[in-house]
Amino acid sequence: MLIVPEKEIADLMTRDAAFDAVEKVFAAMASGDAYNFPVVREAIGHEDALYGFKGGFDRAGLTLGLKAGGYWPNNLEKRGLINHQSTVFLFDPDTGKAKAMVGGNLLTALRTAAASSVSIKHLAREDAKVIGMVGAGHQATFQLRAALEQRNFEKVIGWNYHPEMLPNIEKVAAEAGVPFEAVDLPGMTEADVIISITSAFAPSLMADHVAPGTHVACMGTDTKGKQEVEAALLARASVFTDEVAQSISIGEAQHAIAEGLIKENDIAQVGAVINGTNPGRTSDDQITLFDGTGVGLQDLAVADAVVDLAVKKGIAVKVDF
Amino acid sequence: MLIVPEKEIADLMTRDAAFDAVEKVFAAMASGDAYNFPVVREAIGHEDALYGFKGGFDRAGLTLGLKAGGYWPNNLEKRGLINHQSTVFLFDPDTGKAKAMVGGNLLTALRTAAASSVSIKHLAREDAKVIGMVGAGHQATFQLRAALEQRNFEKVIGWNYHPEMLPNIEKVAAEAGVPFEAVDLPGMTEADVIISITSAFAPSLMADHVAPGTHVACMGTDTKGKQEVEAALLARASVFTDEVAQSISIGEAQHAIAEGLIKENDIAQVGAVINGTNPGRTSDDQITLFDGTGVGLQDLAVADAVVDLAVKKGIAVKVDF
Repeated sequence: MLIVPEKEIADLMTRDAAFDAVEKVFAAMASGDAYNFPVVREAIGHEDALYGFKGGFDRAGLTLGLKAGGYWPNNLEKRGLINHQSTVFLFDPDTGKAKAMVGGNLLTALRTAAASSVSIKHLAREDAKVIGMVGAGHQATFQLRAALEQRNFEKVIGWNYHPEMLPNIEKVAAEAGVPFEAVDLPGMTEADVIISITSAFAPSLMADHVAPGTHVACMGTDTKGKQEVEAALLARASVFTDEVAQSISIGEAQHAIAEGLIKENDIAQVGAVINGTNPGRTSDDQITLFDGTGVGLQDLAVADAVVDLAVKKGIAVKVDF
Repeated sequence: MLIVPEKEIADLMTRDAAFDAVEKVFAAMASGDAYNFPVVREAIGHEDALYGFKGGFDRAGLTLGLKAGGYWPNNLEKRGLINHQSTVFLFDPDTGKAKAMVGGNLLTALRTAAASSVSIKHLAREDAKVIGMVGAGHQATFQLRAALEQRNFEKVIGWNYHPEMLPNIEKVAAEAGVPFEAVDLPGMTEADVIISITSAFAPSLMADHVAPGTHVACMGTDTKGKQEVEAALLARASVFTDEVAQSISIGEAQHAIAEGLIKENDIAQVGAVINGTNPGRTSDDQITLFDGTGVGLQDLAVADAVVDLAVKKGIAVKVDF
C-alpha cells in the first residue's frame, strides 16, 4: 500500500503528465474500455458540507477506485484549510486490495485544467491567437496556465463578475509572456478560445458574445441548476463532453436539453475525437463547445500517474497494510 | 492520518466492542441521527469482481466515511487471498480531511455477527435455550460465536446444504462448551433462536420449520434475487431490520413484499426497539424476524471503534498526509 501525501503532489505532478492521463482516459471512456460509477453526493447536514464519492474503472489502464471528499464551505474561514477537500483511493483490480492513497486537492485542480486543455488540443482552430477567460478565481489560473500550452496564443482577455479578481489571471498571462486585457462580455467575440470557469447559477456568456470559429470550454457547471453560458449557444455549437450522461443532467447542457434546443444525440464524447471516430471540428467557422463536467476516472487517472512518479522518485510512503 | 492494517484487527477488536458499536449506530439510524448513502455496487467486468462503496454519516457519533471493496471470486484459488476484500476510510466531518484507513475484512465479519447478536439481545425470548444455525460456512462461525454470548444457550443445532461443513460450527459450540446436533430443516422447530447465514437464491427454511416464539435472524440476503427463508414466514412474523429501504429492495423482505404478503409499513427498525420507541417482542409465542441487510454505517462504527483501540494501544500507524 502506497501513500502520496497532498504536500508532495506539487513537486511531483506535471501539467504534461496530467494532460496525458486525462487524454488517455477520455479516449478509453469513448472506446468503452473505461466507465464511471454512479456518483454519490450528499448534503450531510454538518458544517454545510457536501460529501461524496466518484468512482470508476479503466479496463485499459487497469485503474480502479474512487475520489472521496467534497466541499466544506467553512474550512477557510474557521480553520485556514481549503474548502474543497478530497482524497483518491486506488485499488488493485486483480484482487480488490487497496493499492494507494493520494492527496486529491491539487490533483483535482490539475485534472480539471487538463480537461479543457485536451478539448482545446482536439477542437480549437490551429491558428487560435486570442484566449478569453470568463472567471478569474483560483481554478481559473490552473485552466489558463494549462491552456496557454496548447496553441501559440498572443493575447489573453478576461472578464470576471468581480473585476478586482482579474489580476489572478493577468499574473498567469504575464508569467507566460502574453499580454492581458480586461474586457466586457461582448468583448469576448475577439477570442478564438474561451474558457468559462465560474460557479454561477445564471449565464454570463451569451451566444452573441461568441464569434464563429471559436472553441468554448465550459468548466464550471457540475450541479443541477448551475449555468455559465446561454443555452442558445449550445444550439449554435457542436457540443462535446467528457460524459454525456453527466452533461445532460448536471453539466452545462442540462439547460439546452431542458429547453429542447438540443438532444442527447447532439452531444459527442471528446474521447471519440481523440480516438478519431468523431471528426471533431470540420470547419473554421464552426463553434465547438466542450461541456467539462468532471468525472471520477479523471481523478483516478491523474492519481495513478502521480503514484508512478512518486515511486520513481522514491517519495511514495510504503505502508504494510 | 491513522492507519490500522488488516493484520492488527484480530488482536485489537473484541466482540464486545463490535456489539456496542453496532447497537449504538442502529439506535442512531432509528432516531434519525445517522443515515446511509446510496450504495454503489458494480460488476466491473474484470476477474468477475463486484466492487463498490457503502458510505454514511453518523451525526451522533461524528463518524463519516465509506467502506470500499467487494467480492473477487478467484482470489482464493488463484492467489491464496480471501475473496471478500474491503477497506474502511474515515473522514473528519468537521473538515472533510481523510482521518483513518482501516482493514475491513475481519471487521465486516465481526459487524455482521454483531448485527444478529443485537437482534437476539433485543428480540429473542429471555429463556431461549436452543440456537439453530442454517448455514455452516466461515461467516456462520462468527455469527454463532457472537450469538452464544446473548442468552444461556444449552444446545446448538445446525443444518447446511453441504453437511460436511457442519464441523465448522460444531467446533464453535464445543469451544463454548455447548453440545451440538446436526438436524434436518424440520428439526429447526426445536430452536428458540435461528440464524440463517447462507448465500442462497432459493429458500431453505420454510415457515413450518419455525416454532412459535422463535427469533429468526436472516443474515445472508444482501442482493436482489437472494433468498434464505420462505416468504410466508415473514407474513407470520414481526419483521425488524437494520434499514427498511434495503430490507424491501435487496434484503430478505424483498420476496414477501413482491408477493404482497407484507407491506413496507410492517417492517420496523431494530434501532427503534433499542431506543424504546418500538416495543419489540410483546409475547412469548410471537415469531420475531430480523432482516440483516448490512449497512455502511455498521462498517464505519466498528472501524471507528478499532481506531480508538489502536490509538490507545499505540498500534495505529501515523502518516503525515
